Amino acid sequence: MSFKAPDSLSEQIAQHLGQLIITGELKAGDRIQELRVASELNVSRGSVREAYLILARRYLIDIVPRKGAVVSEMTPKHVRDVYEMNILLIGQLCRRATEAWKDDELAPFLELLQLMEGYVANAQVMNFYDATFNFARMAYQFVDNPYLEDMLEDLQPAVRRTYYFAINLNQAEIDKSMVFFRELMACIMARDVDGAEQKLVQFGEYQRETVLKRLESSEAASI
Amino acid sequence: MSFKAPDSLSEQIAQHLGQLIITGELKAGDRIQELRVASELNVSRGSVREAYLILARRYLIDIVPRKGAVVSEMTPKHVRDVYEMNILLIGQLCRRATEAWKDDELAPFLELLQLMEGYVANAQVMNFYDATFNFARMAYQFVDNPYLEDMLEDLQPAVRRTYYFAINLNQAEIDKSMVFFRELMACIMARDVDGAEQKLVQFGEYQRETVLKRLESSEAASI
Repeated sequence: MSFKAPDSLSEQIAQHLGQLIITGELKAGDRIQELRVASELNVSRGSVREAYLILARRYLIDIVPRKGAVVSEMTPKHVRDVYEMNILLIGQLCRRATEAWKDDELAPFLELLQLMEGYVANAQVMNFYDATFNFARMAYQFVDNPYLEDMLEDLQPAVRRTYYFAINLNQAEIDKSMVFFRELMACIMARDVDGAEQKLVQFGEYQRETVLKRLESSEAASI
Repeated sequence: MSFKAPDSLSEQIAQHLGQLIITGELKAGDRIQELRVASELNVSRGSVREAYLILARRYLIDIVPRKGAVVSEMTPKHVRDVYEMNILLIGQLCRRATEAWKDDELAPFLELLQLMEGYVANAQVMNFYDATFNFARMAYQFVDNPYLEDMLEDLQPAVRRTYYFAINLNQAEIDKSMVFFRELMACIMARDVDGAEQKLVQFGEYQRETVLKRLESSEAASI
């Protein structure tokens, strides 16, 4: 489908810079200087520019004429917009997967759910959230639409960035997320398409509100 | 939001190559040679590589390791997958716009609809279809979600490519499309969100079936 070369140099540079943005080491509004990145990583400026295109497609930077690459904003509006698309795309994935799975194909999902229960029990918050992405990825096979996969993959770094930002979620919050996943799985197994989508929307909206609350309290704190 | 530099050299190269793909001068499976493009357009190979990333994001080429840029396939499956996403994204745009428009904001849509009536009357098929894209673009302002806009803009070249392919549609087909648009506009004006979405889905599915029919008859002809 589109650009799929996990080993390419520009992809590696994009992964490296992307991780710094997701974890908040590079912050909204920070300029990323092409020459500096090229010299620090000992790569060509052309490769850095290619990495910028990849990062822009993943909504982590904006390429601003005469200014270069700038880490993208994460305002409440950005969060709402990202979640609107994530809920829409994951909702489609969920509907299609709930219709299409076959009898022997749900075992890996149940195993992952068990793993997630363990993460919740041990308060391994980021492991838990990374597993929620894997849960979605495992459903790709049932839908087999590379355009949907590309759009979801491009959006995931921005969603992960919001999770990272809100990482000091308390235990009650991941407990609640786990409840959604159990209920979602029950709907999928019952081929309850509307129910599964409704659970997903609830989960997405709950995550969005959690991130927004954290964002507002951090904005209030920084004034 | 993401990469927005309509004047950049790589964007210009991408537009140029993209147009050759959309109009069918470059065909599915054709290799686009980096060196040749660079020398024909008198640009650097780095700029061509950047253009490839843009074209891959627009689903017009695949970047294949050790092979370079290859014009992407347009099989019945690709057509179905592209339309699934287009219908999903345009459906969201339509729902949100139908809820959000304000009293004095519909005039440009009615004017465009008039223009489209003229294209239908004069059998100006590509003008008509280009106007359908503009109709969607004019709705962006009501939704104001740059992620949705980016995803739609990235998908449009692939949709245009299918239209171009099926350009020798007969008059009956654009007449029927126009009926959908009139009905869609009536739903939007009545704030009938479900009705508007339903019309859009019908229009999208009708277009998809038209393209698929053409694709099958061309495949049959080439055997």
